[in-house]
Amino acid sequence: MSVFVVLEGIDVSGKSTQARRLAERHGALFTFEPGDTALGADLRRWVLDASTPMEPETEALVMLADRAHHVRTVVEPALARGDSVVSDRFFASTLAYQGYGRGVDLGRLRAASEIAVGSCWPTRTVLIDVTLEVAAERRALDHRDRFEAQDPHFFDRVRAGYHELADLYGWVVVDGAGGVDEVTALVEDALDGLAW
Amino acid sequence: MSVFVVLEGIDVSGKSTQARRLAERHGALFTFEPGDTALGADLRRWVLDASTPMEPETEALVMLADRAHHVRTVVEPALARGDSVVSDRFFASTLAYQGYGRGVDLGRLRAASEIAVGSCWPTRTVLIDVTLEVAAERRALDHRDRFEAQDPHFFDRVRAGYHELADLYGWVVVDGAGGVDEVTALVEDALDGLAW
Repeated sequence: MSVFVVLEGIDVSGKSTQARRLAERHGALFTFEPGDTALGADLRRWVLDASTPMEPETEALVMLADRAHHVRTVVEPALARGDSVVSDRFFASTLAYQGYGRGVDLGRLRAASEIAVGSCWPTRTVLIDVTLEVAAERRALDHRDRFEAQDPHFFDRVRAGYHELADLYGWVVVDGAGGVDEVTALVEDALDGLAW
Repeated sequence: MSVFVVLEGIDVSGKSTQARRLAERHGALFTFEPGDTALGADLRRWVLDASTPMEPETEALVMLADRAHHVRTVVEPALARGDSVVSDRFFASTLAYQGYGRGVDLGRLRAASEIAVGSCWPTRTVLIDVTLEVAAERRALDHRDRFEAQDPHFFDRVRAGYHELADLYGWVVVDGAGGVDEVTALVEDALDGLAW
């Protein structure tokens, strides 16, 4: 059996660290979006380069193109070999960031996401939640990319979007405010019983 | 008044030549998809480079990202200045090539296209039609890119798709088999009465 686990959350929620740990502990492939393919690295460069402002609709479609390629060249081949996969971000990120965050129509975005995802739905998705106060503290220590140069209410909307999606899809929401080991324990609890 | 005119058709239908002529004659901006922006040139390179095979879904979403950017950085600004625009290809190309031609779900593709196009619908679209026999003759004289290395029934499906779309949206279909001047006259007839 192989499983496809996705960790979601706003920037600096700690999900990347947790996703790497999770993959290592369970012998799964760690991967991420956007950018974990040659095409994706180019697409990511376009979207995240602060000197290239990009319209929300273009950004959404570039992200979805990256996802479509990532699914078919990384995630599905790994699952077909019997390997489990842990991905840092997946389809919820586009809905949260470009939909809830930047205002791209959610219904259309969902249909477009289905082109990207195909039948490759995650076995389980965990949302690592941090309050905006915690995020602001962590971000002050971090470098800034274009997503972090957004208006102050941007992360409000993204976080609220993530919570709506978690309710809708029944994802476990984990509190990401604690230390790394503490959050790891919560993530492992959330994934209890999974046949890696 | 400004108008947004789109010429569509399979490769070697002559639509690029006709679109350039039309723009020149009416003092409109000539533009094309995919690739008539800096981002678009990169995206086009990814899709059309024969050494980089791309899945139909990825290809569709890259094309739509190119369109979203093209609409917002080229077409809409020109129209807002009061200039007319003639585009060689627009949303029908993605439906015809990636939808009818390569099998990406048409309903989802239509929703995703609406993200790309927004409210920027063409004033008029003309389909320049050539039979597959005429296309094959012309293609023998032409260089090959990845789209032209497709299976023999690919252009059948694309052409049939274009005809279905023309019926659905009420586009004029012009016979592209004749000489360049002859086809120009037919295109001008199809656009008669337009307030350039």
